[in-house]
Amino acid sequence: MKVTAIANSNIALVKYWGKRNEELNLPFNNSISFTMDDQLQTVTTVEFDEKLKKDKVILDGVEANERESARAVKFLDVIRKMAKIKLNAIVVSKNSFPKSAGLASSASGFAALAAAASKAAGLNLTPRELSMLARIGSGSACRSVFGGAVEWRAGKKRDGSDSYAFQLSPPEDWRDLRNVIAIVSEDEKKVSSMEGMKRVKNSALFSCRLKTINERLRVIRNAIKTHNFAEMANAIMQESNNLHAVMLDSWPPVSYLSDVSLEIIKKVIELNESFAEPVAAYTFDAGPNAHIYTTLKHCNEIVKILKDINGVKRIIVCGIGEGIRFSDKHLF
Amino acid sequence: MKVTAIANSNIALVKYWGKRNEELNLPFNNSISFTMDDQLQTVTTVEFDEKLKKDKVILDGVEANERESARAVKFLDVIRKMAKIKLNAIVVSKNSFPKSAGLASSASGFAALAAAASKAAGLNLTPRELSMLARIGSGSACRSVFGGAVEWRAGKKRDGSDSYAFQLSPPEDWRDLRNVIAIVSEDEKKVSSMEGMKRVKNSALFSCRLKTINERLRVIRNAIKTHNFAEMANAIMQESNNLHAVMLDSWPPVSYLSDVSLEIIKKVIELNESFAEPVAAYTFDAGPNAHIYTTLKHCNEIVKILKDINGVKRIIVCGIGEGIRFSDKHLF
Repeated sequence: MKVTAIANSNIALVKYWGKRNEELNLPFNNSISFTMDDQLQTVTTVEFDEKLKKDKVILDGVEANERESARAVKFLDVIRKMAKIKLNAIVVSKNSFPKSAGLASSASGFAALAAAASKAAGLNLTPRELSMLARIGSGSACRSVFGGAVEWRAGKKRDGSDSYAFQLSPPEDWRDLRNVIAIVSEDEKKVSSMEGMKRVKNSALFSCRLKTINERLRVIRNAIKTHNFAEMANAIMQESNNLHAVMLDSWPPVSYLSDVSLEIIKKVIELNESFAEPVAAYTFDAGPNAHIYTTLKHCNEIVKILKDINGVKRIIVCGIGEGIRFSDKHLF
Repeated sequence: MKVTAIANSNIALVKYWGKRNEELNLPFNNSISFTMDDQLQTVTTVEFDEKLKKDKVILDGVEANERESARAVKFLDVIRKMAKIKLNAIVVSKNSFPKSAGLASSASGFAALAAAASKAAGLNLTPRELSMLARIGSGSACRSVFGGAVEWRAGKKRDGSDSYAFQLSPPEDWRDLRNVIAIVSEDEKKVSSMEGMKRVKNSALFSCRLKTINERLRVIRNAIKTHNFAEMANAIMQESNNLHAVMLDSWPPVSYLSDVSLEIIKKVIELNESFAEPVAAYTFDAGPNAHIYTTLKHCNEIVKILKDINGVKRIIVCGIGEGIRFSDKHLF
């Protein structure tokens, strides 16, 4: 059976960084994200076929490189084991945005692959089971299973059976919210997230981050519950700073923020200072590209500010989107 | 009586950042520095004169601006109170390097002013008393009273009477050591140290920095005692990263490292990786300029690496220098 699934990327307000279990992608802390609209999307078609001698993976029209292919095959092995099948698969996947540019393509990628491949293998997973499966492919993919505001519960169990995402608030509650993305660089990351998450364990500051992150989660969770943007804005920016601080304190140091990123930070803070309450909140993943959460009302102003910053290459205005869907339009 | 004092700048291996008392410049943690050679020097002549209607301060040939002048007058008031005099003073001061460029001009500046003004006021202070006095002018100035390797004891008392610097190792023990300074920017700091040190108190990570800094002090102190450069190199770099991490985690965030600074960090780490043991250690104060501690043997190699980095404007190779001296060559 050929199955096609669609998943959107998500951009975290409270970040996933550091694994208590590297094999199962079990995090140290809960994280919270919004799922993006269809501009940041992966569509993936999977078919298991007894005629195939090995798995075949096509990403954006070209055969996957060795590293990508190995990662996909390893993930398919997990699904084959669950479904008790031994067939090889063909996977064809298309991103609506460049890979590895800090736009969380592995989140949408593994969410779509988890959904398409598990169904194609004959599994009928609940959303929670699908979230746990996607997590094994790429941690943050577990959040892309759901739309709107999503929390990933870190869990405590060693087998990861209590580490999954759930929806905090559906996308229709956030019609006004926007993520204004400033693309500063489309190059591959200097240090992979996988490597960076290993290094953070040696940061002398990481334990302090974990001690204070629950309070930040509480503030943001409450603000989401009451749809209060201003209340969560400072917490979002402070969380991003805190993340990049522990990255810098890792050894060897990891630094993703560029001069352009710092200029964007400065401009957002100045914009907020010019209002009585914060109207925008920047957040940076493992890269220099800025994600500026704001409301529709201030969107044009922020686009204008970003356009005036030297080094901002492209601007994408993203709304809040849906979780995983299936489609009849197969890619092959 | 006209008195002229000479003091050199110092560049810390373990940094002073955050004050438990802002009036007296009492720090949260001990810090360790090397005093630089005469290339980073301040010469200051002071005379108290009953004919003066108010204090007059000349810095590098021009009358001090309002902010600089107010700071000097406030410091002279401390000395007048100690010496029980009411005379106004003329202060003429010359730096051998640009002010506010992250080359610690306030350290040499207030060390020289403390020495010249206290002696001109008729006080005969011990080096320890002079260190405490200089500290009130600018915290890190207390370390410039001594040459070679110097530690500033944070102290615990509220009146600051146990917060002073002392020499760990004289300059002649460090004939081989060099600080290769890469000037990246000679602009004034974006955020003053005074303001940055206030903000760091709200960093969620600052308490973790303080908890782990004693171990770093111990490693560096021991390495200084045994003259083992390789042993202190990683601790120096990690301390610099740790400092800039808590700066970034302050609110609003403080970031002094530029793209050029990050490139220098990368090159130093690569250089060390190419040897069996670390041969160079970068450290950054409140600015983008790099201080690369190394030994004479590797000095030319580091200069060559820095020259190839786009954005490095000037390179100064500095040795280890003396503490405070007096001179008969007055500036007026």
